[in-house]
Amino acid sequence: MDVAQVLRMNGGEGDYSYSNNSLLQRKVISMTKPIIEDALTNLYCGMNFPQTLTMADLGCSSGPNALLVASELVKSIDKIRQKLGSNNEAPEIQMYPNDLPHNDFNTIFHSVPKFQNNLMRMPNSSCSPQFYVCGVPGSFYTRLFLRKSIHFVYSSYSLMWLSQVPDMTSTNKGNIYMSTASPPNAIKAYYEQFQKDFLMFLKCRAEEMVPGGHMVLTILGRQSDDPCSKECCYVWDLLAASLNDMVSEGLVEEEKLDSFNIPQYTPSPKEVRKEVEKEGSFSINCVEVTEVNWDACTSDGDDQGYNMGKCMRAVAEPLLLSHFGELIIEEVFERYTNHIKISMAKEKTKLVNVTVSMTRKI
Amino acid sequence: MDVAQVLRMNGGEGDYSYSNNSLLQRKVISMTKPIIEDALTNLYCGMNFPQTLTMADLGCSSGPNALLVASELVKSIDKIRQKLGSNNEAPEIQMYPNDLPHNDFNTIFHSVPKFQNNLMRMPNSSCSPQFYVCGVPGSFYTRLFLRKSIHFVYSSYSLMWLSQVPDMTSTNKGNIYMSTASPPNAIKAYYEQFQKDFLMFLKCRAEEMVPGGHMVLTILGRQSDDPCSKECCYVWDLLAASLNDMVSEGLVEEEKLDSFNIPQYTPSPKEVRKEVEKEGSFSINCVEVTEVNWDACTSDGDDQGYNMGKCMRAVAEPLLLSHFGELIIEEVFERYTNHIKISMAKEKTKLVNVTVSMTRKI
Repeated sequence: MDVAQVLRMNGGEGDYSYSNNSLLQRKVISMTKPIIEDALTNLYCGMNFPQTLTMADLGCSSGPNALLVASELVKSIDKIRQKLGSNNEAPEIQMYPNDLPHNDFNTIFHSVPKFQNNLMRMPNSSCSPQFYVCGVPGSFYTRLFLRKSIHFVYSSYSLMWLSQVPDMTSTNKGNIYMSTASPPNAIKAYYEQFQKDFLMFLKCRAEEMVPGGHMVLTILGRQSDDPCSKECCYVWDLLAASLNDMVSEGLVEEEKLDSFNIPQYTPSPKEVRKEVEKEGSFSINCVEVTEVNWDACTSDGDDQGYNMGKCMRAVAEPLLLSHFGELIIEEVFERYTNHIKISMAKEKTKLVNVTVSMTRKI
Repeated sequence: MDVAQVLRMNGGEGDYSYSNNSLLQRKVISMTKPIIEDALTNLYCGMNFPQTLTMADLGCSSGPNALLVASELVKSIDKIRQKLGSNNEAPEIQMYPNDLPHNDFNTIFHSVPKFQNNLMRMPNSSCSPQFYVCGVPGSFYTRLFLRKSIHFVYSSYSLMWLSQVPDMTSTNKGNIYMSTASPPNAIKAYYEQFQKDFLMFLKCRAEEMVPGGHMVLTILGRQSDDPCSKECCYVWDLLAASLNDMVSEGLVEEEKLDSFNIPQYTPSPKEVRKEVEKEGSFSINCVEVTEVNWDACTSDGDDQGYNMGKCMRAVAEPLLLSHFGELIIEEVFERYTNHIKISMAKEKTKLVNVTVSMTRKI
């Protein structure tokens, strides 16, 4: 069983991802709020205040954030409607949280009644928005919805997950992700897998979205043109360092490490733009880059290295577990957390987000 | 916490219901297949072979049957399309399995990929039907979908569950359901709760369905005009007998039994017709009554009384558990199974199904 398969089995593509981190996710939503509200305003006015709206959150995960996006979108639409002085009644909104079939949808669904009650008691709302939730199990690299049925697509911290580990012609020796020490072939394989996956994602959404529909995607990425830039690779370099230490101490087999690679690609704004233009169904409204400090994963006063370690463990553990087995897990993450602590004490390290807002061409 | 609340918490309204019984459910689908196919043919032709179809299965439960209905509907549409020699491509179908928020949707979702693969490899199909699944958590006595968004609604063995235990002015002493020994007030309360719930169900669906959309409902019911008819009440009479025995032996408190009532109503075809006509949004195509022997719950060669006992335990246990506590459960069901065995040996006992097919008026 390959890593991607395990990632899928364990949720993958967003599940055991950064999007599970509540603080980080809230931070990202608040940073991208102006872009989301612009997109929703254009959508809502452009369609002349429709009575019904359908929205999808792709890679919703299953923690306390799973309905956070839904809530923010419903509130935004209500705010826009009131700001525009529209005399139209509040639209009915159908929200589709999506993740892989092994995501824990039960937990999301248990919280739906409370969630609907809270939204109906929204302060400053002229009338209660009607808001329905349907869970959609499946990979967002396949079709998920009927053709021309979705008005708004949102995805946050999910699209950097590839559908599989890239097929490499030469071994990415001693590395677990793209790194300055990686052979050019490995870096090429990573980029090609990203292109293939992202193109498939865009093709599927192009079929599913109504003409004039909007899509806002936030992807963990990088500023630099260099795919091995520290801003995106450093966090995996530290994990690779921990594993390499364990190889040299005879705790991990060298071949095991050589055959392990993280199925992720952190694209630059240019690379994102290039694929959208190549696919051709969407016009880009904006591409923006934002930064979040690693310590955004943690509340004030927490041991920040420890918490970032915990955050990364949630992301990496299912991958490591299936490849290396259970025995080394505690040891790996102890070493990894130490590496993170030392690094955070030395310098401010950041996660880079690429946000792209686009409109389905008519 | 009242019984209905527990029923809801435990899934209720179909979850711990007869629809969990795989054999019974298959039997019911096969018996009502001609009605379903008529409705789908009228829908599909009446809408001039639409490219997309949306279908809901209300009270889908979570066992192996949860996607059975979906599968049958997709196959039927494909069969109809081929029979009509339509040159149109297969429609894309969005299937919405629905049940209460505490239903186990995870199990359903885990089986979706396998299910989609099987349907795509359907023999005799000219082209693979595209088929999407969205899980909808919520009570079908509330709105679940956007207005005018659903083409076909199906529900089997779910609508006899009431939204709550009826409010009774006089105690239904010694009984746990409607019975010939029940006070007239109790029977009136049951009927009024059914009317209220079924009316609400129809109002919600009328808003959600597209004009010309079809709905097929199979409800556990009765032939007779008498609400205390043996055909629908006997199965609960036997449970009441077991509980009364235990009261007389001091194993169950009398007041406990007196305050326990099953939140179910088994309507007659006339009563179903009356509510549909009163609500006014649907025209009735047919109302049919079918019968299933109690032993339809069991395979040949099984100990039929034992299996019917198991089937009824799945239905009744969550209700009894929350009202009487854990201690008496084994004893109650041992006695109940015995009562069922004796009764099945003496006479052929039947479940009565009322199936109604209707069209949303334009």
